[in-house]
Amino acid sequence: MDIATIIGILLGFTVISLAVMQGGGGGAFIHIPSMAIVIGGMLCATLIHFSLGQFLGIFSVIKKTVLVKVPSPSELIQQMVNYAAVNRRDGSLALEEQISKVDDEFIGKGLQMLVDGQEEDWIRDMMGLEVQYRQERHKVGKKILEFMGAACPAFGMIGTLIGLVQMLRNLSSPDDIGAGMAVALITTFYGALLANLVFIPLAGKLGLYSKAEILAMEMTLEGICAISRGENPTGVREKMQAFVSPSRREEIKATV
Amino acid sequence: MDIATIIGILLGFTVISLAVMQGGGGGAFIHIPSMAIVIGGMLCATLIHFSLGQFLGIFSVIKKTVLVKVPSPSELIQQMVNYAAVNRRDGSLALEEQISKVDDEFIGKGLQMLVDGQEEDWIRDMMGLEVQYRQERHKVGKKILEFMGAACPAFGMIGTLIGLVQMLRNLSSPDDIGAGMAVALITTFYGALLANLVFIPLAGKLGLYSKAEILAMEMTLEGICAISRGENPTGVREKMQAFVSPSRREEIKATV
Amino acid sequence: MDIATIIGILLGFTVISLAVMQGGGGGAFIHIPSMAIVIGGMLCATLIHFSLGQFLGIFSVIKKTVLVKVPSPSELIQQMVNYAAVNRRDGSLALEEQISKVDDEFIGKGLQMLVDGQEEDWIRDMMGLEVQYRQERHKVGKKILEFMGAACPAFGMIGTLIGLVQMLRNLSSPDDIGAGMAVALITTFYGALLANLVFIPLAGKLGLYSKAEILAMEMTLEGICAISRGENPTGVREKMQAFVSPSRREEIKATV
Amino acid sequence: MDIATIIGILLGFTVISLAVMQGGGGGAFIHIPSMAIVIGGMLCATLIHFSLGQFLGIFSVIKKTVLVKVPSPSELIQQMVNYAAVNRRDGSLALEEQISKVDDEFIGKGLQMLVDGQEEDWIRDMMGLEVQYRQERHKVGKKILEFMGAACPAFGMIGTLIGLVQMLRNLSSPDDIGAGMAVALITTFYGALLANLVFIPLAGKLGLYSKAEILAMEMTLEGICAISRGENPTGVREKMQAFVSPSRREEIKATV
Amino acid sequence: MDIATIIGILLGFTVISLAVMQGGGGGAFIHIPSMAIVIGGMLCATLIHFSLGQFLGIFSVIKKTVLVKVPSPSELIQQMVNYAAVNRRDGSLALEEQISKVDDEFIGKGLQMLVDGQEEDWIRDMMGLEVQYRQERHKVGKKILEFMGAACPAFGMIGTLIGLVQMLRNLSSPDDIGAGMAVALITTFYGALLANLVFIPLAGKLGLYSKAEILAMEMTLEGICAISRGENPTGVREKMQAFVSPSRREEIKATV
Repeated sequence: MDIATIIGILLGFTVISLAVMQGGGGGAFIHIPSMAIVIGGMLCATLIHFSLGQFLGIFSVIKKTVLVKVPSPSELIQQMVNYAAVNRRDGSLALEEQISKVDDEFIGKGLQMLVDGQEEDWIRDMMGLEVQYRQERHKVGKKILEFMGAACPAFGMIGTLIGLVQMLRNLSSPDDIGAGMAVALITTFYGALLANLVFIPLAGKLGLYSKAEILAMEMTLEGICAISRGENPTGVREKMQAFVSPSRREEIKATV
Repeated sequence: MDIATIIGILLGFTVISLAVMQGGGGGAFIHIPSMAIVIGGMLCATLIHFSLGQFLGIFSVIKKTVLVKVPSPSELIQQMVNYAAVNRRDGSLALEEQISKVDDEFIGKGLQMLVDGQEEDWIRDMMGLEVQYRQERHKVGKKILEFMGAACPAFGMIGTLIGLVQMLRNLSSPDDIGAGMAVALITTFYGALLANLVFIPLAGKLGLYSKAEILAMEMTLEGICAISRGENPTGVREKMQAFVSPSRREEIKATV
Repeated sequence: MDIATIIGILLGFTVISLAVMQGGGGGAFIHIPSMAIVIGGMLCATLIHFSLGQFLGIFSVIKKTVLVKVPSPSELIQQMVNYAAVNRRDGSLALEEQISKVDDEFIGKGLQMLVDGQEEDWIRDMMGLEVQYRQERHKVGKKILEFMGAACPAFGMIGTLIGLVQMLRNLSSPDDIGAGMAVALITTFYGALLANLVFIPLAGKLGLYSKAEILAMEMTLEGICAISRGENPTGVREKMQAFVSPSRREEIKATV
Repeated sequence: MDIATIIGILLGFTVISLAVMQGGGGGAFIHIPSMAIVIGGMLCATLIHFSLGQFLGIFSVIKKTVLVKVPSPSELIQQMVNYAAVNRRDGSLALEEQISKVDDEFIGKGLQMLVDGQEEDWIRDMMGLEVQYRQERHKVGKKILEFMGAACPAFGMIGTLIGLVQMLRNLSSPDDIGAGMAVALITTFYGALLANLVFIPLAGKLGLYSKAEILAMEMTLEGICAISRGENPTGVREKMQAFVSPSRREEIKATV
Repeated sequence: MDIATIIGILLGFTVISLAVMQGGGGGAFIHIPSMAIVIGGMLCATLIHFSLGQFLGIFSVIKKTVLVKVPSPSELIQQMVNYAAVNRRDGSLALEEQISKVDDEFIGKGLQMLVDGQEEDWIRDMMGLEVQYRQERHKVGKKILEFMGAACPAFGMIGTLIGLVQMLRNLSSPDDIGAGMAVALITTFYGALLANLVFIPLAGKLGLYSKAEILAMEMTLEGICAISRGENPTGVREKMQAFVSPSRREEIKATV
């Protein structure tokens, strides 16, 4: 679970809420029709821009970004080194019982191919394609979040324009003007807040998370291929450590 | 037919209309001269930017984007696998009767070349060029929509400037100021709404649709070439499935 | 002559003028000092940005963009096929009398090189360099128009700031405020109108025109090279048609 | 220590402070809640965008940018030429006592590899990876500073919107309006000042510093590799001077 | 000397001054504290962004851009053709007396290398590096001017925010409001004017000038290399004319 994202969002809204409270009249900042314009308009524009499948997929992508834990490189190397040891000691069929213990679907697929005795080229092709399609999906997710971050302020402005036109049509007393304009500005406030505290930073985090996950997948791919060539645990470790900064490499040994 | 686009546009305008109604005075938001400035100015700028042919072609491109259905990869593979089976069983001349049953002009051309006994290189060159020119046409369509999305707010602002100058020249009573400014702001509202709820998202959808259609054309091209080499249905399927994520590949068999 | 550009500009200014008239007080929109700030400032900035030669060249580039007609691919192919027929029938010296009949300077140069019996490599080098330098010149023209399109709104804003400062220094009656502000906004109006209805779309059209002219030059180059190799009219046609979408290729025969 | 950065920041804030003082009422420009919105909001958005580790690392990156001194190319060449002389005279083991005298960790690692008698390819691989990871870390640092520079004005505007809405809700006397609006504008002022006087220029300086440090590391890498090949001091100097403009090359001799 | 730059700047400020005069109250547009904020703030930000050396170098770069004259290609070819003739007639040592007559330091260096009898590869390497470093320096100069062009409006806005806050804190009479706001807007005016009439166009001109100077240096390099190979004047001319559009090539003969 990514703590930074959750802390950031909670703390951010707390800071803004305190600022609103401190000035008094916090109730004025909750205005359902304004929310409907900004969020509704933004969702509709997103629906036009992307396909229904991509649109519905974005929520699972966000959830994953916040909740899923990318394994650290050394954990991953440890895991693969163990599989290499098992493979050398008991043969590739012995890896079958490891598959059920694996959470990560991608590692599971790789082990299955080892058990099935597939050749290295085939494994590399199949797993490489999976890496590529995962990357593609992440890219679409990032694009959707960035589009949402751009659409929010736009619909905020549209809402403010609607409010201004309505207010300007009947200017009776200065008090009404103020209240009308306050309401009109709320949509711009919602648009700016959602874009800058939610969608734009989340798109950035998704990019970061994608980079880490793709790296883990590429390391896995190299590890599985090394095992399929029958390399010993040390060889597997060295192949996978090529992805890690030299100053962070640790001596990892098989623990099975 | 792309449901997301239609839902998005209908829902988007409904949300905005409800927001306008709820505040009262919806009639103030329909102002023909303001519409003329924004839409007229935007169309004229588009006419200057692009050629007459490209300008007129954009409407058919939009219509197609919303209405045409890109065949799913598995449908396409099924179709090609069937042609391969026919070709192997009855010879390439037997494909002639399939041509008339085909909706897609591109597949039809490919089959005709098979019937004519053209060589693979020639088929690849000719169909490859078609793919390239289709891509080019889509790119122009996307560029026009993006330009429209940029021109709308610009002419919205120009209209507002006209309205403001006219209003400022005779400031008699505060009520007149309000009404004048309300009218002046309507063009900015139109510009922002058209850009953000229609042109910018439509340009994005066109890009998406283009990607899907070009992929389908490239798969078709590979399928036709495989048939021209006399490969069996399984070989054709494998060649075409290289474009599909491994986890989505299905076992497809000839059904003729 | 490019009709779309002319229609677009005329229609665009008509739409804006009608909008101005309809609100009354069209005279307020013609203000010479405001024009001087926007156009004068923009021209000075352009003069600083580019060299004197490039600056003076832009007007001929614009004129050409609007007036010159790029030959259609099939006309060009027809012309080259005829030269190939003459060359095969009467030898390359017979092309000399064709040179005087040719409008296009580039084709003329190519024919002259054929008459002079230059080798294909030399022709390709010389004509290729001309294509490249023409492209370079178009790119500079497009850059100047784009810079003008960016400078216009900037000087519009500068003019409005001048007007606002002058108005704010003596606020006597509300009427004076209105009139002063109306004048101040006129420069922003001029800047936005010139940028969005003239310079930005013209830059786009120049890019389009450049693409078409460069394509015609490359087709000409291939045709001349094919003739210099002594290919027959059919061979010349096929080489040149490689630049045309297969669905638009016509059967062209020599007409001399 | 980079004097320009420190002078720039001190002088910049002095200029702005003097401008504030001169107009009177400097106290109005210090408003803790406004600061909390801009800085708090910006930090939260940064926390959402980046990982906790990257976020905490940015402060050490900034400190280093301002404080650390990148060695000049000629100093670096002098140092390496000396090591080459020692290596030639007393053998690579004699370099061991130099390691403890070296401040730079990267040079120390290189010397250690020489002492250990590693082969050139291995040294090049290991040190090259370090260069690459350092570059990556700098790039992340620059991206964070740029994001902060973009988030500051955004949260400045959000703060101003909050202030405006609060002010507009109770318009009693013109004096209150002024005071309320003055407070509302302070957040925009903070956002613009922090972005333009701190984060955007610092991001630029970090890019510059990164370029200089990476160059020094690449020169060091080439020097160490030349020593490992047993080249004499002159050879080492020539290899390293290839990174220096010819007009700045000096005759450097070993001083040990 | 580049006349266009000087005419552009002089004429531009004249146009703006006339516009200011014509509206009356030109004195209001000269406000030293406002100038201090915009120019001071901008210089400080530039100092933070770049190193002290780069910052100080920008003034000489600007001066050179405006004053130095890039030799025309044909002048340059004439010069090199003469050196080739001298070299063929009297040997390379005879070039020594030409060095003192040469203004351009780069050509002087090239001649010196010819006199010293350096090999072509060495000349190409050394002069090529000089070209590359010159290009790098121009690029930094352009980046500084572009940054200044972006910083000016930013500090203009910061100054206006300061002025607005100060004015809003004591709203006594409408006249004071006007005067205060006029002063506040002056900084925005300065920022926009400096950016759009000085820094942005100068950055463009520097890019143009850089292109021309780099081309001249590359032609010189080719010429010197041809002379070092002992080619005759005609061979030198042909090598150098490859950089010139065919339609502009002249028959140049040695004049010594």
